[in-house]
Amino acid sequence: MAGNSFGKLFKLSTFGESHGPAIGGVIDGCPAGLSVDLEKIQTELNRRKPGQSAIVTQRKEPDTVEFLSGIFEGKTTGTPIGFIIQNSNQKSKDYSHIKNTYRPSHADYTYDEKYGFRDYRGGGRSSARETACRVVAGALAKQLLENIEINAFTASVGDIFLNKKPHEIDFSLIETNPVRCPDKASAEQMETYIKQIRKEGDTVGGTVQCVIKNVPKGLGEPVFDKLHAELGKAMLSINAVKGFEYGSGFEGTKMKGSQHNDLFNEDGTTKTNLSGGIQGGISNGMDIYFNVAFKPVATIMQDQETINREGDMVKMQGKGRHDPCVVPRAVPIVEAMAALVLADFMLQNKCAKL
Amino acid sequence: MAGNSFGKLFKLSTFGESHGPAIGGVIDGCPAGLSVDLEKIQTELNRRKPGQSAIVTQRKEPDTVEFLSGIFEGKTTGTPIGFIIQNSNQKSKDYSHIKNTYRPSHADYTYDEKYGFRDYRGGGRSSARETACRVVAGALAKQLLENIEINAFTASVGDIFLNKKPHEIDFSLIETNPVRCPDKASAEQMETYIKQIRKEGDTVGGTVQCVIKNVPKGLGEPVFDKLHAELGKAMLSINAVKGFEYGSGFEGTKMKGSQHNDLFNEDGTTKTNLSGGIQGGISNGMDIYFNVAFKPVATIMQDQETINREGDMVKMQGKGRHDPCVVPRAVPIVEAMAALVLADFMLQNKCAKL
Amino acid sequence: MAGNSFGKLFKLSTFGESHGPAIGGVIDGCPAGLSVDLEKIQTELNRRKPGQSAIVTQRKEPDTVEFLSGIFEGKTTGTPIGFIIQNSNQKSKDYSHIKNTYRPSHADYTYDEKYGFRDYRGGGRSSARETACRVVAGALAKQLLENIEINAFTASVGDIFLNKKPHEIDFSLIETNPVRCPDKASAEQMETYIKQIRKEGDTVGGTVQCVIKNVPKGLGEPVFDKLHAELGKAMLSINAVKGFEYGSGFEGTKMKGSQHNDLFNEDGTTKTNLSGGIQGGISNGMDIYFNVAFKPVATIMQDQETINREGDMVKMQGKGRHDPCVVPRAVPIVEAMAALVLADFMLQNKCAKL
Amino acid sequence: MAGNSFGKLFKLSTFGESHGPAIGGVIDGCPAGLSVDLEKIQTELNRRKPGQSAIVTQRKEPDTVEFLSGIFEGKTTGTPIGFIIQNSNQKSKDYSHIKNTYRPSHADYTYDEKYGFRDYRGGGRSSARETACRVVAGALAKQLLENIEINAFTASVGDIFLNKKPHEIDFSLIETNPVRCPDKASAEQMETYIKQIRKEGDTVGGTVQCVIKNVPKGLGEPVFDKLHAELGKAMLSINAVKGFEYGSGFEGTKMKGSQHNDLFNEDGTTKTNLSGGIQGGISNGMDIYFNVAFKPVATIMQDQETINREGDMVKMQGKGRHDPCVVPRAVPIVEAMAALVLADFMLQNKCAKL
Repeated sequence: MAGNSFGKLFKLSTFGESHGPAIGGVIDGCPAGLSVDLEKIQTELNRRKPGQSAIVTQRKEPDTVEFLSGIFEGKTTGTPIGFIIQNSNQKSKDYSHIKNTYRPSHADYTYDEKYGFRDYRGGGRSSARETACRVVAGALAKQLLENIEINAFTASVGDIFLNKKPHEIDFSLIETNPVRCPDKASAEQMETYIKQIRKEGDTVGGTVQCVIKNVPKGLGEPVFDKLHAELGKAMLSINAVKGFEYGSGFEGTKMKGSQHNDLFNEDGTTKTNLSGGIQGGISNGMDIYFNVAFKPVATIMQDQETINREGDMVKMQGKGRHDPCVVPRAVPIVEAMAALVLADFMLQNKCAKL
Repeated sequence: MAGNSFGKLFKLSTFGESHGPAIGGVIDGCPAGLSVDLEKIQTELNRRKPGQSAIVTQRKEPDTVEFLSGIFEGKTTGTPIGFIIQNSNQKSKDYSHIKNTYRPSHADYTYDEKYGFRDYRGGGRSSARETACRVVAGALAKQLLENIEINAFTASVGDIFLNKKPHEIDFSLIETNPVRCPDKASAEQMETYIKQIRKEGDTVGGTVQCVIKNVPKGLGEPVFDKLHAELGKAMLSINAVKGFEYGSGFEGTKMKGSQHNDLFNEDGTTKTNLSGGIQGGISNGMDIYFNVAFKPVATIMQDQETINREGDMVKMQGKGRHDPCVVPRAVPIVEAMAALVLADFMLQNKCAKL
Repeated sequence: MAGNSFGKLFKLSTFGESHGPAIGGVIDGCPAGLSVDLEKIQTELNRRKPGQSAIVTQRKEPDTVEFLSGIFEGKTTGTPIGFIIQNSNQKSKDYSHIKNTYRPSHADYTYDEKYGFRDYRGGGRSSARETACRVVAGALAKQLLENIEINAFTASVGDIFLNKKPHEIDFSLIETNPVRCPDKASAEQMETYIKQIRKEGDTVGGTVQCVIKNVPKGLGEPVFDKLHAELGKAMLSINAVKGFEYGSGFEGTKMKGSQHNDLFNEDGTTKTNLSGGIQGGISNGMDIYFNVAFKPVATIMQDQETINREGDMVKMQGKGRHDPCVVPRAVPIVEAMAALVLADFMLQNKCAKL
Repeated sequence: MAGNSFGKLFKLSTFGESHGPAIGGVIDGCPAGLSVDLEKIQTELNRRKPGQSAIVTQRKEPDTVEFLSGIFEGKTTGTPIGFIIQNSNQKSKDYSHIKNTYRPSHADYTYDEKYGFRDYRGGGRSSARETACRVVAGALAKQLLENIEINAFTASVGDIFLNKKPHEIDFSLIETNPVRCPDKASAEQMETYIKQIRKEGDTVGGTVQCVIKNVPKGLGEPVFDKLHAELGKAMLSINAVKGFEYGSGFEGTKMKGSQHNDLFNEDGTTKTNLSGGIQGGISNGMDIYFNVAFKPVATIMQDQETINREGDMVKMQGKGRHDPCVVPRAVPIVEAMAALVLADFMLQNKCAKL
């Protein structure tokens, strides 16, 4: 209830602060009999891991997931799947400099206002570290979804955009570069820009696009739980996200109905796909695609003026190891959240008709 | 569960098709002792009503809400508030021309795929008529929220944009024109454009912006139920919505952290508000503002090729009375959904700390 | 959330006070394609109706259900099923004598304490009148359950007991007498006793037993949502219920494991059925049976001392038309709640395994 | 959803099999700022622990709880509280004898039917070992409830009953004997009986009574979530429970209304308390009391005929270390579940009125 659970039938509940002994979660509602490839789950976690390339934070966290229940002889048993990820790195840090200080555009101030005090070590619960648990659950959800292909990638960094339509993307290129942009030239531009930004002690935002193929028809529940509404919530719940659009998105608002309508082919597919694979909140079998906007990371390596708990102005030093651009590491998180949404609706849809 | 309920503590469940005898809903969880101004609720409904101006659909529906329970001697009793809105207009229509035909970019095809058959009369449950129930519940939520001011307005129609920052808006101008755009010149341009579009038998999209003032600090629940994630879901669940962004939104992705961070004043307010009043998913007391993208209405007054249930290509005539642009009537719906989200989080926040 | 919804996938939300214009509800999650026999639903309502025989309250309420949505051309559409039952009789009553008075063992005092004031007309929301909505939804659930047979009946009135084992009951006798006891001799004894109690201006309690046949194996969810735990909650939520036991129940606590264990036959059935058809919270295919304890109705036709809102002792007259024994009219309510639980678990079970 | 979560606002989700590496849970929704006494939590766990006396199972499990999150500097932070309990004893056991065999009146058969296969090691998820997690969460809930006193105790073993009214109990005697019966003579009789039963290689049932003092008025939500309905569900979800009754319970069904009604004193208390502290599903401030029926443990130390997965009759040896009577160790579990229900309703009640 207090916001740490996601999903109705395929449900993830997570816990853990960035600097406690461990983070973890419980996946309840995964059907019994699913053969689980544990290595694939770890592989997804590794895509999110700090220290994976020269353009992400150089912190070291092994991020190894341990499953504690719900899997027996290689298969899910239908009972809840508990897991933890140890926080190996948590003791070495010194957070006394932010104990009484509110970092600008962080959650420090709002947590204090809401709860009366906060776990100030590295952001506590508001740290993006919690997304590791989403990746674990999402990786399991992907295995449940079998034939559905979920591919996210970096679509922009700052004002450098990958100018390709969803159907033009070669997904096999995503993992060929540290930016996770499926276009060699754009990827190189973005990489160069991120390195420059890091030198400046600054950060930059960007967008992730996600394309989902082979979606069965009928996923999504009217009225409030439309497929794109849950996808939107899922994405907006990821740290640093400021916007979500699917199909024609914000650009579509400028169009006329006669241009925007997706005319049918005889087999029920559509000639265009401005609907983004969803009509009336329900998947129509065409590709689902959407964009997710990430703001620049708030922690910068520059001094900033800020206030402390007493309301005094204080100078705050930029230090530590942080991502100059969150987008490359956000790619697997976007995929994971998409997988959780689809897995949940796939189960819900089993009850749609007799 | 099947998607017709919204909210956790302040909860709305709705029912009803556009052409059944009535639509309605149940509001559960409204605290006892709230003095209810029934007239204000009807006023909100009237803002959404068809036939209210020359630029919206000319259908006639009185849209009078009747409360059946939960209010006694002018106050909420703490028990569920049931209400209905009769469908006065539903018998006169002839829908035989769409009985077996899938209208392009409507929910006809997906409902049929999901449920095996559908109520084809005027869109059935997928009709935007269901949003009238949201407006009723939202109007009640507004009364619960007292000092919080929620103002939505038309920010663009097609490519005509109101070029004002959230803090520059004079909300008193919103209801002075049928477009609900708080700027005389822009409103006139938009109105002219909508009339032209209607003459073409076409439709056009647009965006609604919403600005919320006097929000208490501390609303929103980490991790998955961030305030902006629920706002996003709420907006994306409205018919025809394709995108949501808050604060700096998609533009913010192009910025550097050093530009984007909202520096504090000594009183905890911030010098800028690119965060859009929400940090770490929790309100910080600054104005919340967000944009909602609406696609052009799919029903156009032009002939279109489409398919029937048998998969044959058929010609479909454009007829009936529909909105050339949904945005002016969407304004009260956006406000209603925002009110539902805030009311729910206000109740949830009562349990945040001892 | 505030307690007026029941079920997770097959979900009922109800509203309405005994003396408002109407009561009603929304059933969300009923799969599409179910052929609905509306007459059968009304028949169930009639079994609960006041005035049906000489031993129940002589109030007159036609209790006609009107469906407002979710059923089209005789079938459920998968969208929410809204319904109302008009309160035809509500204006004639005078409740001024209880406006400021707390009736002993009623909900008057607790509602006032919880909500700050109450709708004092005939019990308001705490009136057993709300159970009519349960019967409507339960009657629909029965139609979804097809082959499952749910039979409840009066097992005791005061200290007159039907001394039969669940498997000895002839269900065809239940509706042959106004007590709904499937044994002619016991029924007559009970009827005579109820009439005598009424003459005394008093009331008496009793128990309802329910036997469910042809239950599929596998219904019920461990750990917290065991089948019998939800059945127990369902029954305990009915007005006037004080206890629930299934299978061997309270008597079983006196037994030894060697006597109590149900040994298997080779086909997976068991030689005895002290488990009551449920093992580990999951149905095993044997008959489910349980007892529900109803206290005597609190409204008696005798004068009682009580207090008013100011805490003064006042004399309260016994008047009005009330049931001397609630049990005969509770039988269809017990069946309805059992049907809701089973329908919900039947849907939930669709996701148990791949 | 799949049944491993309990509570709406104070919510526990658990995971873990008896013979996996660990069991554990997540408590979400505990308000921030609660000072946590970790030792008291461990003390409650020790009351449930195997091997604590001569009349319970002699298995050795240290049952030490480790908290992983949500508590910082001795206080709850408002974020989820994750915890695990290592299964130290799980590797030594040999379960090959039950791998393909269905133990009578266990959950073996039903799990196999529901999930297609099962974790056969020691009952897997159906083992009462999961109740350790309930005790952890319940012990925390007790600390949130402060002044509310929850005392459960053994009220019967087999046909040996403690013949005392709830208000006659001296709670300080509960922990003075291994049976947890607050009467020296009855406790000795029960202990002797349990030892004799164990010698026979048999087991026996019993009842636990729980008395709750200092309950605030107003807890519980009409209509479906009545306080006693949730208490009933909570108790019925505990392994081996067959029945629940509160206040006058099943005996109350034999009474007349004129005897059963609890007449008021001028201060709103009642002269009698057959209502058991709950009227209309809402606490009235009087003591809450209820009985919980436990069947005899199904695992006996005698040979039994049973079937295997192939449906063949096989002889099954009674071996291992099991409780001859589950009731003494069930006492802290009953208290824990009661605390969870009350904590949840205490939070829910914050939204009852303005």
